[in-house]
Amino acid sequence: MTSTSYFSPEVRTWTVSEAPFHPGKQYHTETITTIGNGYMGLRGSFEEGYPNEIVSTLIHGVYNQAPEEIVPDLVNLPNPLAIQIMVDGEQFHMQKGSVLGFRRALDLKTALLTRGILWRNSKGSIVQITFERFASLEHEHVLAQRVTVRALWGDPEIEIAAAIDADRLSAGANHWQVLEKGHDGTASIHCTGTTNQSNYQIAVAATVQCDHGELVYEPLDNLTPALRAKFSLKQDQGASLVKLTAIHSNRDTADPLVAAKNTLNTASKIGYDELYNGHQAEWAKYWYDSDIEIDGDEIAQRALRFCLYHVLIAAPRHDDRVSIGAKTLSGPGYKGHVFWDTELFMLPPLTLTQPKIAKNLLMYRYHNLQGARNKAQEAGYEGAMFPWESTDTGEETTPRWTSPYPDTPRIRIWTGDNEQHISTDIAYATLQYWHWSGDEDFFVNCGAEIVLDTAVFWGSRVEYNRTLDRYELSQQIGPDEYHENVDNSAFTNSMVRWHLRQALQLVDWLKQTHPQKAEALLARLKIDAARLELWQRVIDKMYIPRDPQTGLYEQFDGFFKLHKVDLTHWTPKVHNMDAIMGHEPTQEMGFIKQADIVMLMALLGEDAGTLEQRQRNWDYYYPLCDHGSSLSPSTHAWVAARLGLDDEAYYMFMYAANIDLEDLKGNVRDGIHAAASGGLWEAAVWGFAGLTLDGDNYKFDPNLPKHWKSMKFRFWHKGKQHTVTLTAE
Amino acid sequence: MTSTSYFSPEVRTWTVSEAPFHPGKQYHTETITTIGNGYMGLRGSFEEGYPNEIVSTLIHGVYNQAPEEIVPDLVNLPNPLAIQIMVDGEQFHMQKGSVLGFRRALDLKTALLTRGILWRNSKGSIVQITFERFASLEHEHVLAQRVTVRALWGDPEIEIAAAIDADRLSAGANHWQVLEKGHDGTASIHCTGTTNQSNYQIAVAATVQCDHGELVYEPLDNLTPALRAKFSLKQDQGASLVKLTAIHSNRDTADPLVAAKNTLNTASKIGYDELYNGHQAEWAKYWYDSDIEIDGDEIAQRALRFCLYHVLIAAPRHDDRVSIGAKTLSGPGYKGHVFWDTELFMLPPLTLTQPKIAKNLLMYRYHNLQGARNKAQEAGYEGAMFPWESTDTGEETTPRWTSPYPDTPRIRIWTGDNEQHISTDIAYATLQYWHWSGDEDFFVNCGAEIVLDTAVFWGSRVEYNRTLDRYELSQQIGPDEYHENVDNSAFTNSMVRWHLRQALQLVDWLKQTHPQKAEALLARLKIDAARLELWQRVIDKMYIPRDPQTGLYEQFDGFFKLHKVDLTHWTPKVHNMDAIMGHEPTQEMGFIKQADIVMLMALLGEDAGTLEQRQRNWDYYYPLCDHGSSLSPSTHAWVAARLGLDDEAYYMFMYAANIDLEDLKGNVRDGIHAAASGGLWEAAVWGFAGLTLDGDNYKFDPNLPKHWKSMKFRFWHKGKQHTVTLTAE
Repeated sequence: MTSTSYFSPEVRTWTVSEAPFHPGKQYHTETITTIGNGYMGLRGSFEEGYPNEIVSTLIHGVYNQAPEEIVPDLVNLPNPLAIQIMVDGEQFHMQKGSVLGFRRALDLKTALLTRGILWRNSKGSIVQITFERFASLEHEHVLAQRVTVRALWGDPEIEIAAAIDADRLSAGANHWQVLEKGHDGTASIHCTGTTNQSNYQIAVAATVQCDHGELVYEPLDNLTPALRAKFSLKQDQGASLVKLTAIHSNRDTADPLVAAKNTLNTASKIGYDELYNGHQAEWAKYWYDSDIEIDGDEIAQRALRFCLYHVLIAAPRHDDRVSIGAKTLSGPGYKGHVFWDTELFMLPPLTLTQPKIAKNLLMYRYHNLQGARNKAQEAGYEGAMFPWESTDTGEETTPRWTSPYPDTPRIRIWTGDNEQHISTDIAYATLQYWHWSGDEDFFVNCGAEIVLDTAVFWGSRVEYNRTLDRYELSQQIGPDEYHENVDNSAFTNSMVRWHLRQALQLVDWLKQTHPQKAEALLARLKIDAARLELWQRVIDKMYIPRDPQTGLYEQFDGFFKLHKVDLTHWTPKVHNMDAIMGHEPTQEMGFIKQADIVMLMALLGEDAGTLEQRQRNWDYYYPLCDHGSSLSPSTHAWVAARLGLDDEAYYMFMYAANIDLEDLKGNVRDGIHAAASGGLWEAAVWGFAGLTLDGDNYKFDPNLPKHWKSMKFRFWHKGKQHTVTLTAE
Repeated sequence: MTSTSYFSPEVRTWTVSEAPFHPGKQYHTETITTIGNGYMGLRGSFEEGYPNEIVSTLIHGVYNQAPEEIVPDLVNLPNPLAIQIMVDGEQFHMQKGSVLGFRRALDLKTALLTRGILWRNSKGSIVQITFERFASLEHEHVLAQRVTVRALWGDPEIEIAAAIDADRLSAGANHWQVLEKGHDGTASIHCTGTTNQSNYQIAVAATVQCDHGELVYEPLDNLTPALRAKFSLKQDQGASLVKLTAIHSNRDTADPLVAAKNTLNTASKIGYDELYNGHQAEWAKYWYDSDIEIDGDEIAQRALRFCLYHVLIAAPRHDDRVSIGAKTLSGPGYKGHVFWDTELFMLPPLTLTQPKIAKNLLMYRYHNLQGARNKAQEAGYEGAMFPWESTDTGEETTPRWTSPYPDTPRIRIWTGDNEQHISTDIAYATLQYWHWSGDEDFFVNCGAEIVLDTAVFWGSRVEYNRTLDRYELSQQIGPDEYHENVDNSAFTNSMVRWHLRQALQLVDWLKQTHPQKAEALLARLKIDAARLELWQRVIDKMYIPRDPQTGLYEQFDGFFKLHKVDLTHWTPKVHNMDAIMGHEPTQEMGFIKQADIVMLMALLGEDAGTLEQRQRNWDYYYPLCDHGSSLSPSTHAWVAARLGLDDEAYYMFMYAANIDLEDLKGNVRDGIHAAASGGLWEAAVWGFAGLTLDGDNYKFDPNLPKHWKSMKFRFWHKGKQHTVTLTAE
């Protein structure tokens, strides 16, 4: 990128940049400049370190429950980014010497993070330091870094130490039973480790090439092996050091260290420039499929790309036993756990633009059915009841207690027990994938089992109310988590009824098209005639709290009677209402955290009511919604666009778009809000473009924001890729 | 503005906003959210105060040289913005209680600054506080504020104290011989003062209306008179307090306090809402004349409006004895002094879009001719030699010494002595105004005298070199201030030659068209035949350091031999090269601060060389330029656009556009870079639109950035307003 192109629209709609350095935004910038390739994710922390930074190197699937913890964490690996630079014996650091200039830029197009610094040491030598890093999309175990030091003033002595740092892993949990450093002469350095509960083995190994000086092995610290190059530069002369890192775990190979050294061998032969070319070519393909191009709104354009980028760098491309956590691989938030965020917010864009990845994510749920069955059984139910928070085992890993603030009483977390709609959300995504991809092989062999065994769970979970001759569900948590353990959540009851309907149709279809497989599966899942009859009865008699005249849903039993707060004056609010009011008092109040009835309308569309009825529900619930969850605005944008509420649709769209870019919720520090990111695609495609897919047909009913001149995107449907350009017309 | 409109392009291209609060950007935001109306300018500091804030209330023309200072300052007046709010006896402050939400927005369209805060005190009461402020464009002595407090949770006791604060004036200089507070029952409060050197008298008086509670007079501090209202609110109830402030000085009235009370009387009768309506209507007219509309580039659109806004709020509308300082009325930088920035960067947009204001600014120079004559005389020259830094007297007020850093030796500032090109810059702007406006009355009676008496100065200033039979100028500083006291600055010598040519033509024209006035003026300025012959000789024999073959200028004698530094690697640089290298060493180096030869090409166009020659000069000087002055990028953008260097033109345009919005130079704290702001209009209109005005004709030679779909603007030419829309075609 030449300097004259910084500001061009081609570049700026593909760039997240910072110039000069804003220390006050350290954590925000660390998160939003995360790089990754679906295998690993690395925050944008500085190579040389910075006080209180959150350095985070995460790979999918490597969880561990530390002895002092109540749930597993995605484990922070030894930091492979570490590079120290000495100029005339003085260590380069953003807080030492003089930073005469600074620019950090993430190129979303190629997932390349660069940082340029002009730095003067106390002796007056001035150097230009340029760091580049990318996690190869072509070779997913490879992280590539290059640092260039150019003498601008003076003839400085330079020393560069490229290290792997296992001494300064994230504070808090201790995940390691073994953590060791090693090296292979000056050919490579490495850190290896074994987690103390889950027994995962990992290896991080690096090789270094420098066009100046001789390499010497000299560790920086106890667990920080390093290779150093020492040389002097004449003014105007530059030197480059390339560091290639390989990361493996015993999730992907028998001996991670051997694999890492092999990977390094291959990568070294390819070299930095060719690695980058291959990486760039892969990204070009990635974006060809997944980009949405907007003419007439650069702000929305950049935000969409930013959000899609973060979903794409976190999506496992070659591993069907892992999924995307709510905070991707970009930070410690939610400990890397997987929620419904994946199925309802990230899967739709992936199913339509990267169907192979979508399949991987669904296979993760399929492989983890046993965990879901265990959970159902422990709770006294049949079938599969997916965990609200999921890790590598598929067991429920939601913590039962939390202490949001020191000095306040701990709070019981009920979502793991009662936010049961996730089982239906997973079924919903599975059916979508089947219907849109036409991937019958997956569906017949895996997908159907997910949909049916979760239906079995619901058949055993619903409660029959003899007095009123109806089926009910007590003690649920709907999407609106401000209200816990409610009875007859309109969202949950409606979705369960829908789920069972789908299950019945699926059984018929399976019997007709794959009789043998049907027989075996139904036998295995114990789906007999009696169970099918039960499902039909539940469908017929499921209680949905809804006024039959007006179509207005009551979010759950008693919601209408809760104390209402007019949120229209609660602007400009950043904090969540439950944080403001307290967890317990919030239960008694009528404001809601996020799209709940509105979510129902998003998922079921016309099945949730006529246009007039849906508008009535919007009018009732929109003013009560606090958007305390980052999942809320995109869903509202989608529904508002469908209801023709143009101002609200665009407002909610841009709200979702800026949650991470502008840190609207003040907590990007902990990681990317991945559901808001995926949700933005949904708001654009389901909401503005009005795409619906039905059998072999698809259609558009566009309602673009009025200043958008056009919107172009691609999607796969039944094995064919379509390119669509919608214009304002 | 409704909340759903925050993100709409109509709003976002007219808005500078901050949400949530970024304490690390305190000074930057204070500066860029300055409001004003051409009479007063007030930084965006908080009503309730904030640690280390720079509160600044400046009015044009009121300078004072404090006893301990070596030059005068624009005087910081008692702060009329002060408002304290107590909620249940607890003082609202951004660092106390809990700020649950924050949004600050400057509406550029109506120059209205609003701030909304959700705030909870330690007892749990939650209030929404909304502050609004504007400096009335219709009634320029009136500042209007409204604060609305709404109880969102609890039934709090509220107390609002509206004050004028003369206790906490800017640190440093003491400008007051008298500073007093007073009040008129509860009808009004005031502070009056008299400056200790210049004897200016000022009055700041305020009146308060509150729709709840009774007003009580109760000062907050020794020099902080205040009116308080105390009341209680029920949940969901709101209360509003309106505070109107009048500011006068004895520059505009005999008795400032009496005038302020009269102004308050009138303003109170009009009331806040009607004041706002009138203000808004005036702004609609202002923008009708001055806006540039760009289709296809909202980022540039907003930046252009932001920059024009800051020129417009600082431009004196009804006073022809003041001018716009380099930092407008937005901060302490350069002590409110007026430089060539006004004539070469701010006057062109004003001359073409607000000709009456342009005339005021030129009249400021006319009224101050005596100061310029004094300066010439003291230096041993004839005619008028304008000061490099000018205040209310027209005397030279450039400080002779500065200490940029503690512990480093002080540095002699030579600009006041030797940056003499300002006299020609003022003549240039005067001629432009005449040629474009056709305002013959101004020109014959005032403008011609500026042009001719500065020509008289140059005639006495040039040095004849007998050996080489040529005229020269030694000891000059050109625009590139990295090189001081140079001989034969190509810029200065060329502009002086141009100036004398214009003077000769002007004398002929004046004699023909206004023989009597000509006779009187020439006699008064002692312009006789001998002087006219001298001017012609100087024109014929002025030495311009330039290769006659290639057309390459040498910036000054010896520039080609200076040590060159390849600045292409000095990215991303924020600091200036002279700050990096030191003031003295910089003199010996071949990098330059800003457009110098490039400025010459901007001002003289084809007279500075053929297209090929100008391109050659660009190629030589562009890589040497450090853009250490904020005046540099816009001039480069203008010239690059004319040379067909599209990438460089747009890059430099956006660089200029972001100097203040993004604080690219790191010093917005001190105030707006007004020349960069005005220069952006020049880059757009002279550069991209290619407007040239010649006699009664004008023409366009557009070279719009390739993604701009259209550019629309208005300009006045010879008393007629033209509306132009240029399209990408």
